[in-house]
Amino acid sequence: MKIALLGCGTVGSEVVRLMRMRTTELADRVGETVEIAGIAVRRAGKDRSHLGVADDLFTTDAIGLVKRPDIDVVVEVAGGIEPAKSWITTALAEGKSVVTANKALLAADGPALADAARAGNADLYYEAAAAAAIPLMRPLRDSFQGDTINQVLGIVNGTTNYICSRMSEAGISYGEALQEASDLGYAEADPTADVDGYDAAAKAALIASLAFHTHVDLSDVHREGIADLTPADIKAAADAGRVIKPLCIASRDDDGISVRVHPAMIPLGHPLANVNGAYNAVFIEAESAGRLMFYGAGAGGTETASAVLGDIVTVARNRRSGARAFPPEAAYGERTVKPIGKARTRYYVSLEVVDEPGVLARVAATFAHHGVSLATVHQTGRGEDAQLVVVTHYAPDEQLTATLDELKRLSLVHSVSSTMRVEGD
Amino acid sequence: MKIALLGCGTVGSEVVRLMRMRTTELADRVGETVEIAGIAVRRAGKDRSHLGVADDLFTTDAIGLVKRPDIDVVVEVAGGIEPAKSWITTALAEGKSVVTANKALLAADGPALADAARAGNADLYYEAAAAAAIPLMRPLRDSFQGDTINQVLGIVNGTTNYICSRMSEAGISYGEALQEASDLGYAEADPTADVDGYDAAAKAALIASLAFHTHVDLSDVHREGIADLTPADIKAAADAGRVIKPLCIASRDDDGISVRVHPAMIPLGHPLANVNGAYNAVFIEAESAGRLMFYGAGAGGTETASAVLGDIVTVARNRRSGARAFPPEAAYGERTVKPIGKARTRYYVSLEVVDEPGVLARVAATFAHHGVSLATVHQTGRGEDAQLVVVTHYAPDEQLTATLDELKRLSLVHSVSSTMRVEGD
Ligand SMILES: NC(=O)c1ccc[n+]([C@@H]2O[C@H](COP(=O)([O-])OP(=O)(O)OC[C@H]3O[C@@H](n4cnc5c(N)ncnc54)[C@H](OP(=O)(O)O)[C@@H]3O)[C@@H](O)[C@H]2O)c1
Ligand SMILES: NC(=O)c1ccc[n+]([C@@H]2O[C@H](COP(=O)([O-])OP(=O)(O)OC[C@H]3O[C@@H](n4cnc5c(N)ncnc54)[C@H](OP(=O)(O)O)[C@@H]3O)[C@@H](O)[C@H]2O)c1
Repeated sequence: MKIALLGCGTVGSEVVRLMRMRTTELADRVGETVEIAGIAVRRAGKDRSHLGVADDLFTTDAIGLVKRPDIDVVVEVAGGIEPAKSWITTALAEGKSVVTANKALLAADGPALADAARAGNADLYYEAAAAAAIPLMRPLRDSFQGDTINQVLGIVNGTTNYICSRMSEAGISYGEALQEASDLGYAEADPTADVDGYDAAAKAALIASLAFHTHVDLSDVHREGIADLTPADIKAAADAGRVIKPLCIASRDDDGISVRVHPAMIPLGHPLANVNGAYNAVFIEAESAGRLMFYGAGAGGTETASAVLGDIVTVARNRRSGARAFPPEAAYGERTVKPIGKARTRYYVSLEVVDEPGVLARVAATFAHHGVSLATVHQTGRGEDAQLVVVTHYAPDEQLTATLDELKRLSLVHSVSSTMRVEGD
Repeated sequence: MKIALLGCGTVGSEVVRLMRMRTTELADRVGETVEIAGIAVRRAGKDRSHLGVADDLFTTDAIGLVKRPDIDVVVEVAGGIEPAKSWITTALAEGKSVVTANKALLAADGPALADAARAGNADLYYEAAAAAAIPLMRPLRDSFQGDTINQVLGIVNGTTNYICSRMSEAGISYGEALQEASDLGYAEADPTADVDGYDAAAKAALIASLAFHTHVDLSDVHREGIADLTPADIKAAADAGRVIKPLCIASRDDDGISVRVHPAMIPLGHPLANVNGAYNAVFIEAESAGRLMFYGAGAGGTETASAVLGDIVTVARNRRSGARAFPPEAAYGERTVKPIGKARTRYYVSLEVVDEPGVLARVAATFAHHGVSLATVHQTGRGEDAQLVVVTHYAPDEQLTATLDELKRLSLVHSVSSTMRVEGD
């Protein structure tokens, strides 16, 4: 079986290394040899001799490589929307199965790619696209087919999890933690994709699409970054027996689904609370299977390549047996993705208040006026330091933000010192 | 698609309930309706009206049901070796794919069943057999095909994990914790299969077979139960910054694999250390994917039925598309399973010793004499209470047990107060 490898950077060079190292095992598991027959790169002149691959395997003509008649399977680890999309749709149209790690493309164009796979009678696998080596796409795609997933809570970005972990452990500021992450190589030179939640949003779209058997577009995902987190927020969480984590959240209820990426407070006892540093984890709540968690490395060339190789074995086996893995079209429904205002969320709110009788009642009445009921209220400090700490029950997010707007205008309230969504209770 | 359900107890009755509840979703996901066309039970007269199933679906003639020409897929949730084995081999021989949760049978006769599936061109799926609803068989079977798994550490029995958790949390004895487990329904009337490790050993055989691409027989699994655990062991672990967990361990090195079930001390910081009560978790260390963990409910009718339904959807889809999932025969190798004496393990040992100069040197020399090197030695207490606490490096288990035998005979050693294998560092 002959493979075209498109891209040979962090992930691609590890795909090359592992496939060379495990040639015999892969042949045993597929039933025939699996060989890289061509590698597309952008820079023709770059020295890649350390890979130990014959020079003439490299080409800058990716589409020519995809179309070569001897190529059976295409592995795309270049990234970006175009030209990756053209390569993949060309391969699928020619009946060549595709393995990709390209979360950005899948989140932007998943349905078109799925249709192309179906039309070409070819497979499209992308285990590495969300959470790298953690088997997540496959369980969502296969294991829970007989169940109903109600919620997925995930820490799917190592950079932001590292930053939040360090802010919590060391009491340092966002800027200091980001600097540390850069120094250690956890954050890229331009950290925007991570800290503003774009990377996590793409993964959230993939996860929600599989979990809810629908097509969730990147534009459906509500996205908030972590750049505004303050040490005061971190301390407020700790005081409330919680910890702040950068979450990807996909949930459903009777009137639709909600997919969002934002930092949130979770209880210290939650399985995700102890997932620190650059690790990723995904927590799933299914109607029958109950609460499950998957944990592991969410990035890294070798880890990602491991998932890519697993997919290569699957599509190669399917190819030999004539099987294809696409689900029946009826398996996909169009489900309403609710805007953030309609999503049911919970809030933690701390307020600096005037220390006089009736302030608690006035604040509580403001929540009630917007239809938000309260789970707990704590009054702490006296005089200048008087504070109210409120945790609400679930309510539509817009009712919570309207409440906050009104609270800020109350003369009894000096300031709203910290607000944060709460998850995982 | 017509299904024969063999067994309608804890798991089977939940399969019935969930399939009725999710009829539409299952049809969407498979591409045609999936219907239970017959249910085999042992007791004909039992009232099962609460299931809402037509009386004439029930039969005590399981093999007749399997052979019925209209049956496409067989789901075995009765348990035990025979007659389950005959039902399953008959189904496979007729080209009917089988879903089973029967760990005992798979551990005893896995290779014969795999051969029968191949010969009959039928699928054999068993996600529910180890760790119930936690997707574990599928990731092992598919996701890690391009990787090399070095070690699996699992908490795969909820009863023994509950007992160990309670002994640690509440400082109670093994007998008291077992009684609690019985009162709460976590332990069966006859708890032997759980506390003596038979249940975990069967799961260990399945896990090791998939992880190492070989056939590990139940008889290859070294098995020790938890009935000898004492509060002193629990306290010794806590003093050493560890916790005792009932583990299933499958590991490999250059000279073979080792599969075993026994309690062991793991560091408090290990991901498995916080898995408490009736929960299960499996920790995997793969060469490229790194360290991963899967966590969830390891038993329960509904949870197990969720996994069974996932398998039903998979085999039904495969059936429609003409695909079968069995791997090429070359994917399986015969690998040496080492007896426990040759397995490389580490020990924690605490000794009551005579308080005189040279005792530490004498004890250390005894370990050295057997080729066991030491990681840490702590000397605590004075006079009557003098104690040595030793943690070794990895060495063949027989060298460690020989060392212990010799230590017990030393006049400087009053007694060996606690010995326990150590894992997960
Ligand atoms: N890195 C991770 O940890 C990780 C984890 C999960 C998923 N992923 C995904 O995996 C993919 C690859 O990531 P990466 O980190 O390996 O990226 P990378 O290091 O930037 O490598 C990209 C590779 O693609 C080649 N390439 C880019 N544009 C090309 C073009 N127009 N024609 C031909 N070749 C082109 C580059 O060629 P040159 O070598 O000539 O520059 C390079 O070899 C992305 O989709 C990413 O989201 C990465
Ligand atoms: N329970 C769990 O949490 C769990 C978790 C994972 C895997 N499993 C596995 O799932 C399987 C079923 O477990 P379970 O807990 O559901 O067992 P169970 O409650 O004892 O039910 C067994 C069912 O099989 C029927 N049966 C037994 N022998 C039969 C025979 N010779 N002919 C026809 N029917 C027969 C019984 O009929 P009657 O109803 O007439 O007695 C009963 O309906 C076992 O292999 C077990 O290891 C169970």
